Amino acid sequence: MARWKLVLEYDGGPFVGWQVQDNGPSVAAVLIGAVHALSGETVAVTAAGRTDAGVHATGQVVHLDLAKALPPARLTAALNHHLRPWPVAVLAAEPVPAEFHARFSAIGRAYRYTILNRRAPPVLDRGRVWHVPAVLDPDAMRAAAAMLVGRHDFTSFRATGCQAASPVKTLDRLAVETLPDGRIVIGAEARSFLHHQVRNIVGTLVEIGRGRRGPEAIAAILAARDRRAAGPTAPPEGLCLVRVDYPSS
Amino acid sequence: MARWKLVLEYDGGPFVGWQVQDNGPSVAAVLIGAVHALSGETVAVTAAGRTDAGVHATGQVVHLDLAKALPPARLTAALNHHLRPWPVAVLAAEPVPAEFHARFSAIGRAYRYTILNRRAPPVLDRGRVWHVPAVLDPDAMRAAAAMLVGRHDFTSFRATGCQAASPVKTLDRLAVETLPDGRIVIGAEARSFLHHQVRNIVGTLVEIGRGRRGPEAIAAILAARDRRAAGPTAPPEGLCLVRVDYPSS
Repeated sequence: MARWKLVLEYDGGPFVGWQVQDNGPSVAAVLIGAVHALSGETVAVTAAGRTDAGVHATGQVVHLDLAKALPPARLTAALNHHLRPWPVAVLAAEPVPAEFHARFSAIGRAYRYTILNRRAPPVLDRGRVWHVPAVLDPDAMRAAAAMLVGRHDFTSFRATGCQAASPVKTLDRLAVETLPDGRIVIGAEARSFLHHQVRNIVGTLVEIGRGRRGPEAIAAILAARDRRAAGPTAPPEGLCLVRVDYPSS
Repeated sequence: MARWKLVLEYDGGPFVGWQVQDNGPSVAAVLIGAVHALSGETVAVTAAGRTDAGVHATGQVVHLDLAKALPPARLTAALNHHLRPWPVAVLAAEPVPAEFHARFSAIGRAYRYTILNRRAPPVLDRGRVWHVPAVLDPDAMRAAAAMLVGRHDFTSFRATGCQAASPVKTLDRLAVETLPDGRIVIGAEARSFLHHQVRNIVGTLVEIGRGRRGPEAIAAILAARDRRAAGPTAPPEGLCLVRVDYPSS
């Protein structure tokens, strides 16, 4: 029995999310199915981030234990073969020590949220962006983002059902980048995030970008420790888990 | 009657190409349908570049003549409404002098060709990239690209059915950029292109990137003035018309 670390890319669109659920296909179920088709084994799969329905990944990290022995490139190719036609691909496979845990060993996570800020609806980015036709002020959004970086009680940005032990998190980076084609890309990095934290932050930044509140409102929103103080939850399709970091061994 | 210049984005996937044809939906037919739904007029539409089946655009330029008078923002919004659910959007509409011609007034065109150079199949970029799993040498591709820039007889890179009066074209830019996620993005700019010129250039650059020929082969390929001397035609889904330039008036 060997433990494997896999890096996955997926389109969250057709899935109920990462986690296996009764109400539709999940990324985990599709991966478990591909492993079964490959080796006959029914494995448990654990992800660094349990992405919600519609959320994408280009750098999700997963671990699983496999009895069948084969070289990493063969495992990757065989899994990709059996994952078809689902929009899930294994980018890399690596044998890791049995102590490696995709979720608990992770020391950093990076998400990217993409807003398409133009009047015309998305076409080539359909299903990959939040379409916000209203004019946004990226400078106001950047000023607000700067106030969120650091160690804070993020209760106001936490989903009601969030299971995390503490609402206090350290946001290491929150960058607002504007691209010439109308996209606004928000990069968020932390050791770990609360449930819906990035989407609730983005929903609040968009309210500030529209001028409904000033960037200085962030201080009061954090202090309120109340979900109702912050803005709405941004839709899932703009969110992508891009990277998970582990201690170099 | 007023002449309008429109800038279009579209996903070429579901279309037989720009031009109206009997064998399936075309971007032009969908646009003509949207104009008819808006104003009852059946217009002729002329594009700067008649993209092939499967080729995308983020900056296609079109002209048409419309009797119905309305402000540019209203025209854009109404067309986008009637274009749904087709993956075509009007990014901008502008009234132009009657002499403006989307194709003949153009003084520059920019295309982007995207290769996904990794073992794993494309997921989030599916239908937007050419998947090349073999290892490519971007430096060899760049050296070959540099030899194609300038004024040449491009007969070897021209589709057999190409209607252009002369095979001599000036390629102003051919840049090969590698991105950390495995994408290789080839940017091509010229006043005008021969039919399949970009895709035939990309197919040849990939042969050189794979080491099947050296970059110096470009000189002999150009000199041959024979389509069979160059590499295969790269598939359409990696190609995107990103910009058309006109004299500033």
